[in-house]
Amino acid sequence: MAEAKAESLRARIYRALDPEARKRGLSITNIALAVLIVVASLVAITATEPTIYAPYARAFITAEWVFGGIFLVEYLARLWVAAERPGAGGPWKARLGFMFSFSGIVDLISVIATLTPGTPAGPLLRAFRLMRVLRLAKLGRLSSAWRHMAEAVSSRRSELILSLGVGVGLMVLSATLLYLVEGDAQPDKFGSIPRALWWAVATLTTIGYGDIFPITPVGKLLASVTAITSIGLIALPTGILAAAFSDAMARHREAAPSEDEKA
Amino acid sequence: MAEAKAESLRARIYRALDPEARKRGLSITNIALAVLIVVASLVAITATEPTIYAPYARAFITAEWVFGGIFLVEYLARLWVAAERPGAGGPWKARLGFMFSFSGIVDLISVIATLTPGTPAGPLLRAFRLMRVLRLAKLGRLSSAWRHMAEAVSSRRSELILSLGVGVGLMVLSATLLYLVEGDAQPDKFGSIPRALWWAVATLTTIGYGDIFPITPVGKLLASVTAITSIGLIALPTGILAAAFSDAMARHREAAPSEDEKA
Amino acid sequence: MAEAKAESLRARIYRALDPEARKRGLSITNIALAVLIVVASLVAITATEPTIYAPYARAFITAEWVFGGIFLVEYLARLWVAAERPGAGGPWKARLGFMFSFSGIVDLISVIATLTPGTPAGPLLRAFRLMRVLRLAKLGRLSSAWRHMAEAVSSRRSELILSLGVGVGLMVLSATLLYLVEGDAQPDKFGSIPRALWWAVATLTTIGYGDIFPITPVGKLLASVTAITSIGLIALPTGILAAAFSDAMARHREAAPSEDEKA
Amino acid sequence: MAEAKAESLRARIYRALDPEARKRGLSITNIALAVLIVVASLVAITATEPTIYAPYARAFITAEWVFGGIFLVEYLARLWVAAERPGAGGPWKARLGFMFSFSGIVDLISVIATLTPGTPAGPLLRAFRLMRVLRLAKLGRLSSAWRHMAEAVSSRRSELILSLGVGVGLMVLSATLLYLVEGDAQPDKFGSIPRALWWAVATLTTIGYGDIFPITPVGKLLASVTAITSIGLIALPTGILAAAFSDAMARHREAAPSEDEKA
Repeated sequence: MAEAKAESLRARIYRALDPEARKRGLSITNIALAVLIVVASLVAITATEPTIYAPYARAFITAEWVFGGIFLVEYLARLWVAAERPGAGGPWKARLGFMFSFSGIVDLISVIATLTPGTPAGPLLRAFRLMRVLRLAKLGRLSSAWRHMAEAVSSRRSELILSLGVGVGLMVLSATLLYLVEGDAQPDKFGSIPRALWWAVATLTTIGYGDIFPITPVGKLLASVTAITSIGLIALPTGILAAAFSDAMARHREAAPSEDEKA
Repeated sequence: MAEAKAESLRARIYRALDPEARKRGLSITNIALAVLIVVASLVAITATEPTIYAPYARAFITAEWVFGGIFLVEYLARLWVAAERPGAGGPWKARLGFMFSFSGIVDLISVIATLTPGTPAGPLLRAFRLMRVLRLAKLGRLSSAWRHMAEAVSSRRSELILSLGVGVGLMVLSATLLYLVEGDAQPDKFGSIPRALWWAVATLTTIGYGDIFPITPVGKLLASVTAITSIGLIALPTGILAAAFSDAMARHREAAPSEDEKA
Repeated sequence: MAEAKAESLRARIYRALDPEARKRGLSITNIALAVLIVVASLVAITATEPTIYAPYARAFITAEWVFGGIFLVEYLARLWVAAERPGAGGPWKARLGFMFSFSGIVDLISVIATLTPGTPAGPLLRAFRLMRVLRLAKLGRLSSAWRHMAEAVSSRRSELILSLGVGVGLMVLSATLLYLVEGDAQPDKFGSIPRALWWAVATLTTIGYGDIFPITPVGKLLASVTAITSIGLIALPTGILAAAFSDAMARHREAAPSEDEKA
Repeated sequence: MAEAKAESLRARIYRALDPEARKRGLSITNIALAVLIVVASLVAITATEPTIYAPYARAFITAEWVFGGIFLVEYLARLWVAAERPGAGGPWKARLGFMFSFSGIVDLISVIATLTPGTPAGPLLRAFRLMRVLRLAKLGRLSSAWRHMAEAVSSRRSELILSLGVGVGLMVLSATLLYLVEGDAQPDKFGSIPRALWWAVATLTTIGYGDIFPITPVGKLLASVTAITSIGLIALPTGILAAAFSDAMARHREAAPSEDEKA
């Protein structure tokens, strides 16, 4: 009898925690946890700002312990209810399976990161916590959107890798040219190819911080050609992705014309 | 008899004021009001510039009162003729309907904003006035263009939200990395994740103000990877939107092949 | 007899000067004139640079007179041979037709601009000369490319104008917000909406000169939202144009499947 | 007998060196050479940085000689086994064919560049070495991706050239306007059209280094119009390429619907 009740409690917690256990929509627990993860991440981001952290150090430390406690309880609960997952074999095998699954490892790291403040890599591990929100992406519309995007990107991965290769090649080429042409005029900025590469990256991605740019006429001429090339460099992957998305949609419609209406 | 004449006047004013009351084209009143709104907005924008405002303060104040008066008369006229709207029930019900409709509220706020100069939020409310030009967007070609765009964007809203999520995730990730790597070298610029986020936003959107950029070799290397990623971040939503617009056009043509010629 | 010879000379000059008189390819005269226009424009551009102009002033003045002379002779020749144009009516009517045609006016302005050095608007009129190269765009492949592009752009002009409207609206909105938030901290940069608009334009077009950017936390937060919006603002017209070009190509192929091979 | 063994050795080396000699995948030799080329290029790039080169000059010089030796041996080996290439005629004719082929010349220049350190153009020739990695692009998926991209770009080359022409025209026009408007206020920055062109390039490609921008109200107004135009200038080639890629995919699927699965 007690066993049956525990079973039923475990099953209920499982349905509350695992978004895949429900047909559609999110359980209140999942929404609350997602909000908590975002809040905890915002707190962790803010905590790195000394002018905010200093006067409220106690509050930040308390908050981290509270978040850590909740995430620890959540982790243990997930471990416990893993046995409910359909087709997982025995309960302990299912729990081991969860521990070594991608989301299980992300969860464990998140808990450890929250409960060990002061480590140098702490901020990175806490930013990492945001990945846990990804769990929600398994749901309904978002899940199919993920699949669409992944399909479209991966169907054209050769072209995208080639675009990247062409881009990197152009960066090396223009950095080399500007090193040769501009190196004498601005040795601290264009005095080596690695230094000139910093300029080439900022130029070909059209960021243009403005910390480094040619000042000689020939350098400006070559930089102008590089700058105009940058439009092509942005247009190439964009055009490939646009075509890939169009293609994916067209295939989709042909394969299952009514699925779009259902989704 | 006088009633009939008033009726007819009200109906005429209604046709002059409401762009939906006409099959095609704009009434002269509508064009005049649109021009007036744009002029009033330009005046309000210019009025915030002290070097222009100071010598012509009187002219600006007078202009605001004139615009406010015209908009007040227009608002009252719209309220009066709301009764002409087909299917609105009784005249007072129609007027209440207009008062609490989106465009009715925008109109009222515009009038109040114009007639209460000197409030701190004044400029915002006056910029808000530009929204009234949207009323013209209900017409013919523009209206169908709006619908097309809204359809295309909303049909891919899951993918667009995911792109935004991926973008924000990348911003947090690269900000965290540069905070760890560059924080010691430039504590005032990369000394916290919020500060580094300002850099990440300017870099991943390819704006690159140049007020903040890494100076250490490792920081520049990571920033270069971020910069190259920014191209993908721009290409992703652009590709999705391009495919969505293509798809919307293709559907449209299939559904009603001759509508394009008519529109 | 002499008349017949003159006729034949005029016809030959006509075929040499007018790209439309030939089925395909360009006459040597046309190529030479195109090269001359580009060279003359480069000379005119270079002539504005005082450090280059000063030591070679004589050479520049001579070059301008030579170019002016050639363009004058060309203009008179075009006027003379305009009579050869098929379906132009009488020879003098054809000449008047050429004088008041778009390219005739462009040619005349170019000649006058070249032969009147030293006027303040001179550089603009000389840059204007580049428009004469457009005459070559009437030919074969380029002509059909022009037509394709014009068709694609104009078929979606309502959407493109709306995008522009949305963009300008966003600029005004974010400029107003930053004026309210950042105006006190940086009165010389954000002290009025027109000043803040300069920031909004540089941000929403992702140019980011770096002469003006927010420094307060709230200003940076709002600017980050604006910056992220800028991606959408670029993606919107790009997506519309991509879809329009796809659509134009698809229609084209359906209408005349073999024309592409012929072109 | 010895001849037969040598033949067989030559054939084996040929299969190891030429990626086209294999149906799919890369030989270990090819992968090793590709890695070596990338490493040698990275070393050459790093060697230009004085702060890294100075303390390790000996190591860098040794590395260059080692790379040069390996590339020399590889070049001679390729020359020897060129005779194995099917349909090449006699062995010496095949070798001459390789020597004067594009990749043969690239290889020879790479060897010479590596073995002649200290020449002024050395860095450029060594960056040039990266082109040798292109040999791998002949393979399977990458090769068909190259072909797709080349087809898509070249099918719309007229439109892309026109976009470039329109872009350059806009640059000259806006540079001329800002030279006229802003030249007096900032003679060192906008005092000639070539100087203003540097601004126009940085603006219309949305790079915006920030070394040069208008400061007068009229200059800022014209620059804002130019800035907004820049979005169209980026959208145009992107849209054309997107449509071209879509079109290429659609044709491809129609022509050989099952090839995509095979590739």
